[in-house]
Amino acid sequence: MRHFTCLADLGPDGVHAVLDQAIAWKRCPPEAHLAGKILGMVFFNPSLRTRASFEAVMARGGGHAIVLEVGGGVWKLEDRIGAVMDQDRAEHVREAVPVLGRYVDLLAVRTFASCTNDDDDERDPVMRAFADYSTVPVISMESAREHPCQGLADVLTIAETFGETRGLPVTLTWAPHVKPLPKAVPHSFLLTAGAAGCRVRVAHPPGFELHPAVVSEAREFARASGGEVTFTSDQDEALEGSRVVYAKAWGPAAPGPLGPEAVRAFPSWRIEARQLARAASDAIFLHCLPVRRNVEVGDAVLDSPASRVIDEAENRFHVQRMLLDWLAR
Amino acid sequence: MRHFTCLADLGPDGVHAVLDQAIAWKRCPPEAHLAGKILGMVFFNPSLRTRASFEAVMARGGGHAIVLEVGGGVWKLEDRIGAVMDQDRAEHVREAVPVLGRYVDLLAVRTFASCTNDDDDERDPVMRAFADYSTVPVISMESAREHPCQGLADVLTIAETFGETRGLPVTLTWAPHVKPLPKAVPHSFLLTAGAAGCRVRVAHPPGFELHPAVVSEAREFARASGGEVTFTSDQDEALEGSRVVYAKAWGPAAPGPLGPEAVRAFPSWRIEARQLARAASDAIFLHCLPVRRNVEVGDAVLDSPASRVIDEAENRFHVQRMLLDWLAR
Amino acid sequence: MRHFTCLADLGPDGVHAVLDQAIAWKRCPPEAHLAGKILGMVFFNPSLRTRASFEAVMARGGGHAIVLEVGGGVWKLEDRIGAVMDQDRAEHVREAVPVLGRYVDLLAVRTFASCTNDDDDERDPVMRAFADYSTVPVISMESAREHPCQGLADVLTIAETFGETRGLPVTLTWAPHVKPLPKAVPHSFLLTAGAAGCRVRVAHPPGFELHPAVVSEAREFARASGGEVTFTSDQDEALEGSRVVYAKAWGPAAPGPLGPEAVRAFPSWRIEARQLARAASDAIFLHCLPVRRNVEVGDAVLDSPASRVIDEAENRFHVQRMLLDWLAR
Repeated sequence: MRHFTCLADLGPDGVHAVLDQAIAWKRCPPEAHLAGKILGMVFFNPSLRTRASFEAVMARGGGHAIVLEVGGGVWKLEDRIGAVMDQDRAEHVREAVPVLGRYVDLLAVRTFASCTNDDDDERDPVMRAFADYSTVPVISMESAREHPCQGLADVLTIAETFGETRGLPVTLTWAPHVKPLPKAVPHSFLLTAGAAGCRVRVAHPPGFELHPAVVSEAREFARASGGEVTFTSDQDEALEGSRVVYAKAWGPAAPGPLGPEAVRAFPSWRIEARQLARAASDAIFLHCLPVRRNVEVGDAVLDSPASRVIDEAENRFHVQRMLLDWLAR
Repeated sequence: MRHFTCLADLGPDGVHAVLDQAIAWKRCPPEAHLAGKILGMVFFNPSLRTRASFEAVMARGGGHAIVLEVGGGVWKLEDRIGAVMDQDRAEHVREAVPVLGRYVDLLAVRTFASCTNDDDDERDPVMRAFADYSTVPVISMESAREHPCQGLADVLTIAETFGETRGLPVTLTWAPHVKPLPKAVPHSFLLTAGAAGCRVRVAHPPGFELHPAVVSEAREFARASGGEVTFTSDQDEALEGSRVVYAKAWGPAAPGPLGPEAVRAFPSWRIEARQLARAASDAIFLHCLPVRRNVEVGDAVLDSPASRVIDEAENRFHVQRMLLDWLAR
Repeated sequence: MRHFTCLADLGPDGVHAVLDQAIAWKRCPPEAHLAGKILGMVFFNPSLRTRASFEAVMARGGGHAIVLEVGGGVWKLEDRIGAVMDQDRAEHVREAVPVLGRYVDLLAVRTFASCTNDDDDERDPVMRAFADYSTVPVISMESAREHPCQGLADVLTIAETFGETRGLPVTLTWAPHVKPLPKAVPHSFLLTAGAAGCRVRVAHPPGFELHPAVVSEAREFARASGGEVTFTSDQDEALEGSRVVYAKAWGPAAPGPLGPEAVRAFPSWRIEARQLARAASDAIFLHCLPVRRNVEVGDAVLDSPASRVIDEAENRFHVQRMLLDWLAR
């Protein structure tokens, strides 16, 4: 059973293949390549881009998407083996997942990190349960550990702008927020940009470390592709001469020395024209969206010609089209 | 970029053209006229008729609708320029709208009036933001100022019944309710019946004035089409000999002399057989629905042969089919 | 107007016809048999299997489903005749139902029992209102009285396993839960297994009686098909040598001697390996799902080779495909 629940399901060679095919299909779209296929989309958490882009892929490909909102139109799901189900979770994934597999051809799942224990989130229990119990291919729409379609859309945007990703200096910088956000998006940028051979520089204040298992994996991918992954707590240093400025808020390492309110404690990390000016003169600005304007990033940056955030969001469609086609074969 | 966010986007000539085409297509429906088209439907407020009728238009036309519920499955959207987004609105329309435009071919938006400041509602900030930032055509599913598809469905029902709308005496009467409702529907009836050349009589208790900018615009449309728009606080006078009795509850002018509880203060305005008897013997009864039976309108009126409320609701489908076809070209 | 809102709409002969056709179509699926058809799905209560299986039937048949969540994306509906609608129900079914019939070709409705008055639930007011006011065929996705598609899926699973249902000893056993659940599923199993000629044994603790009107009806169906329906409060006796063990939790008879907490008072009724061992050596285990593991049924039973719960859920698709095809003709 093929799944795409994490970047390791593709590996560095797979990343290059997906990017090449996505670019080719942007020029010459496939016709009715998903005819007769049904995608079941299971949302444990809300969504705008993900919902619309996946559903659009299915509709444009001649297929159909069924949207199920767990805890909204659908009850809550239990994922712990052996649980005595006497609380508020009315159905176990051991039933829900194989049942859905009888109705649909592909399953897409969105489930956010707890943000309270990074090790638990790294183990990715809900996404693992779907992959384990599903009889049809599963694709991640973001899970506790990774948001792999986002990472691919990010790197596709970079590849389209600069042609070659190998050796390209790119910067992922932490940004302030009003609440602690999951680390899935920064994890996926690390893994994907590493696998694409970029020289990835990550900047964050002390106490906001990403998960060491993901960092190790990203370094392995980078090594295999001629890239590297380095860390600093000096934002200026990380931006110096970089070709890509990727801003993203995430919560402190958990458990760790900082409390959740630390996300508001470094307002000078907000990306403004000053920071963008440190990067290369042809640098582009990326953000996965949604972005809190004037909290994470200033209006001047988002509205500047350097910003590619709308193209980056459009690329979600293109990488997902390619991945759903691959999984549906 | 063509939009349909208010009646002025059509004007009196456009109104006649839409009605003629809608009638023609009721007899001879178009086939697969929306094949390959995706409509993104963004709901800031709930819906039954609107949701079902728009989605049915897309499905019957061979297209597809993606339904996004803001604040439900989707987070809340910010529309204020320059906002520091540190509250509960997680995404700005400056990102959300152009991103959706990359996935869909048409955008439909529903957003209710605040009912606390008629001037703010008249400026229609959310609908304006969608029209300003969208790269694809936008259609209103009701906004703070107008509900233009409803107005067209209302007047289509009148045109089908009486053939000619020019010079026809029609009455819009205020009705009691349990809470203050938006003025978008009465605004659109005024504008559309005016543009169709009706002699529109509006009756409401003092303190429930509609917005003066909308009233002026309706009078201009009426003048261009040989109609007129007049106001009275005498319900009986407004009904006398009228061919159409349109009942609708709305809230007091805001800010104004009356509090929100005033919607309960005029129970004798409820439309009963007594009121219907004042109208012409062949008069029809209209209401946009949902209607609170025995609060706004008595059972005897809704269940009488004069009632056309179900046909009127069906006509939402027919005008929307025509408008989506026009916008999708 | 044809509807399928209760098993009596089919009767014993209809049950056999549906099962035969469903089995035939599992081998050789129909193509585009629902092309151009729209199903409106109205949910007063949440759903996973029902939502996904009905929508999948429409999509695979070339049709389309519109999903409306009452009280979620849609306001609450009033069903009482003559009501003064001054509370929280914003629209009456007398408008909502015929309006939807103008947009769609078929209506599906889900509405749960109150569980506070079994006589009221037996009268099935919401489903009756839909059947009475609809101008298009209505299909039940579970109502206060019955869940007829579930009953058919249950008996289809039995028929596929054992070939012949006439005279087959099958057991429906009450199971513990954390809250009182509706009786629609046990009612439908009684009615459908009876109509299929099974020897239906029902076991429950005293005070958990099913509705007498449903029991009478099931006995009539059974008589017509050569089956029978018997009751006991001795779970062991009911299981002895049975070929089917169907576990289901439901609430106490209401009003009745037991309070809602009684659903937790009989933990020994939970289905474990011990109970399964009393049944025939080739007995299968059924449950309509969702199931609370280790509350209603132990892991060992659900994960045993005797369990057919996933096949049973798949059969929802097959019976519904046949029924929608029949209603759409």
